[in-house]
Amino acid sequence: MAKLTYIKQASQLLCMDGGRGPRKGREMSRLGVIADGSVIIEDGVIAFCGSDTLAELFMGSISKEALEKVEVIDARGMVAAPGLIDSHTHAVYAGSRENELEMRLHGAKYLDILKQGGGILSTARQTRAAAEEALVTEAKSRLDRYLLHGVTTVEVKSGYGLTVEDELKQLRAIRSLDRNHHVDVISTFMGAHAIPPEYAGRPDDYVKLVIEEMLPTVASLGLAEFCDVFCEQGVFDISQTARIQEAATALGLKLKLHADEIAEGFGGAELAAALRSVSADHLLKVSHTGIEALASSGTIAVLLPGTALFLMETPAPARALIEAGVPVALATDCNPGTSPTCSLPFVMNAACLTMRMTPAEVLTACTINAAYAVGRASSIGSLEAGKKGDVVLFKADNYKQLQYYYGMNLVDTVIKNGEVVVKGGMLVG
Amino acid sequence: MAKLTYIKQASQLLCMDGGRGPRKGREMSRLGVIADGSVIIEDGVIAFCGSDTLAELFMGSISKEALEKVEVIDARGMVAAPGLIDSHTHAVYAGSRENELEMRLHGAKYLDILKQGGGILSTARQTRAAAEEALVTEAKSRLDRYLLHGVTTVEVKSGYGLTVEDELKQLRAIRSLDRNHHVDVISTFMGAHAIPPEYAGRPDDYVKLVIEEMLPTVASLGLAEFCDVFCEQGVFDISQTARIQEAATALGLKLKLHADEIAEGFGGAELAAALRSVSADHLLKVSHTGIEALASSGTIAVLLPGTALFLMETPAPARALIEAGVPVALATDCNPGTSPTCSLPFVMNAACLTMRMTPAEVLTACTINAAYAVGRASSIGSLEAGKKGDVVLFKADNYKQLQYYYGMNLVDTVIKNGEVVVKGGMLVG
Ligand SMILES: [Zn+2]
Ligand SMILES: [Zn+2]
Repeated sequence: MAKLTYIKQASQLLCMDGGRGPRKGREMSRLGVIADGSVIIEDGVIAFCGSDTLAELFMGSISKEALEKVEVIDARGMVAAPGLIDSHTHAVYAGSRENELEMRLHGAKYLDILKQGGGILSTARQTRAAAEEALVTEAKSRLDRYLLHGVTTVEVKSGYGLTVEDELKQLRAIRSLDRNHHVDVISTFMGAHAIPPEYAGRPDDYVKLVIEEMLPTVASLGLAEFCDVFCEQGVFDISQTARIQEAATALGLKLKLHADEIAEGFGGAELAAALRSVSADHLLKVSHTGIEALASSGTIAVLLPGTALFLMETPAPARALIEAGVPVALATDCNPGTSPTCSLPFVMNAACLTMRMTPAEVLTACTINAAYAVGRASSIGSLEAGKKGDVVLFKADNYKQLQYYYGMNLVDTVIKNGEVVVKGGMLVG
Repeated sequence: MAKLTYIKQASQLLCMDGGRGPRKGREMSRLGVIADGSVIIEDGVIAFCGSDTLAELFMGSISKEALEKVEVIDARGMVAAPGLIDSHTHAVYAGSRENELEMRLHGAKYLDILKQGGGILSTARQTRAAAEEALVTEAKSRLDRYLLHGVTTVEVKSGYGLTVEDELKQLRAIRSLDRNHHVDVISTFMGAHAIPPEYAGRPDDYVKLVIEEMLPTVASLGLAEFCDVFCEQGVFDISQTARIQEAATALGLKLKLHADEIAEGFGGAELAAALRSVSADHLLKVSHTGIEALASSGTIAVLLPGTALFLMETPAPARALIEAGVPVALATDCNPGTSPTCSLPFVMNAACLTMRMTPAEVLTACTINAAYAVGRASSIGSLEAGKKGDVVLFKADNYKQLQYYYGMNLVDTVIKNGEVVVKGGMLVG
């Protein structure tokens, strides 16, 4: 007998139908809004999505026996959307770095912080020292927070290990989270996140380690779907990045790239486009050529306006990207240095208020476009029959209010694979 | 027999001792942090605040009989602070205006929105049409949200009625909220919030109505503690504002002023200082002279960085104000047009990230300085024996993390007059 979940009569149901690729330009504003809309989930998979009148007909066609096992969720006065997807995070790590915020408020720059033992390498030190189980335990509480903010799928990168063994430890922690938490976790290998201290001054030797030891091991163990590189002045240059990404492609990994975050005209976006990377992320300093290259290749721009706000930097040119036809996704960048948040809803607020994305665009950017950015558009990112029963209900009359009532978490209910996991803003069980 | 509440062993207890006036300059960074700190509340009033070692001694001195009625709250792993105070809101209103956000994202300016029937007057229309009970019911749900964000005292202004009867209706709603909700509500009369349509083109006639009819009635009914005016180009000019505020002073009301929000060099801050206004609010366009005037008069600058962010404007010069010795408070400005939020914790994040206030300064600005801004420093704003038992517990190891873990609500527990009203992030009862 099937288990049915009947999410009934949302004031607005946002279907976000999947279509044939990530949404760009005006297509980013098409939410497929249905008034008094309902979703029926059967054994964890969406069986119906549409008006409640049709939903009632659908229910009428089900046998009495099955109907006894229906859980009805009253969604009146709520906006129902696909479970949100955070397509760029570093959410597995040890330690916290609140002192760096204080230093930056007093004018310290990246290099000042590095000199005082801060920055990525400080997190790498603590992550290396942490046991795998400790990493899992800490990250689980972050995934709980994600659920409370309506997020049902999270991409997580390695890159705080920076040795073969510690990178594997981080990736195993990521896999363990996927298996032992409601949130689905997608794994990205990012051994090339920083040059570890023991390779200071000889980056090419580290690149060799990444290509010859880390990547083959990660691929053979099936520990990652994506490979990402921090392509940036003083970190990995264009040639080093290209070598790593070509090796990853040869091993069957899909690509992501930290591109054009800090230095002007570094060419990260152009490289991502040339390598057919699924996404190019950050893009604060993307050039006009870079934007055109992304538009031509169909690479998704994953923007991280929370990070820009937290670093007190000018955010990425979202409007220029959208107008050029680049599909845009949004993500938290969750990490202990530059974006210590799990609130994707707040990142959506920031996208509106600091990059002038519209309430409709930010929803597309955190659902269907984010699903494409993590290679999962066939199973998540929209409310369509056959997709996973991942639904979030917000306390709001219409989707515009999600950005209007800013700075507050409006998530009331989260349904994951048809199961209620958040109710009244609290974790269930 | 006394009822005792024993908040035990917060990892950091922020005492914020009251001192002899609002904090300015470096004094804004003095939080009185006590590690492993405890608070004991007796019949709603703080009896003890200090280290847990001393708290245990204090408890030892209490008779066995009384001890049976102790509620112990385990605050380990939490930061304990005085209940937060929102010193500037317009939280009693009818209707919502999410469409204006969309218009502004597309480049519409204040006047464009006004022409399409939006702006303050659209809220005034809906508030006039609403019954007093409806205003109370809607605002109660906002006060619930405030509690969930750690706020135990809220100032609320009238100013959406704009007729004698409708202003009184709004003020009665504010009084009813104070009496029927855990949150303490402080009432400000702001009949001079806008020139109502029936007085278009003859502002002086409306000013006359405010001075000759509204103010005396409000004062005689004891419906407000403060009088506020929207002193701005195209709203109430310096001379009109001064007349209203002098009349209010004569009737025994304390003053607040919406000053220097939009027009450059309008002189609002200078006027607030000259009138010995308790606070001057907004100050996005305050001049150098205005800052000096505020510093001399000791007027508190109530800054509203959420509003600036929501309007996509450059925020107030917080650093210049603090460095000049002006005491600074922070508030949400909660209203349906320019700041539809009840999250004072988020406003604190915004104050750090957009105005470079430090984690210590923003706490002072939402506790003891906010208490002075609402004329209540003798009873709230710090954790000292004799003050109200209003305490908030945040899930954080130290106070810096409150700004570091940005965009999320870290409030776990709220105690109002010694009673637990929020627990595990949820309203109790
Ligand atoms: Zn990143
Ligand atoms: Zn105001």
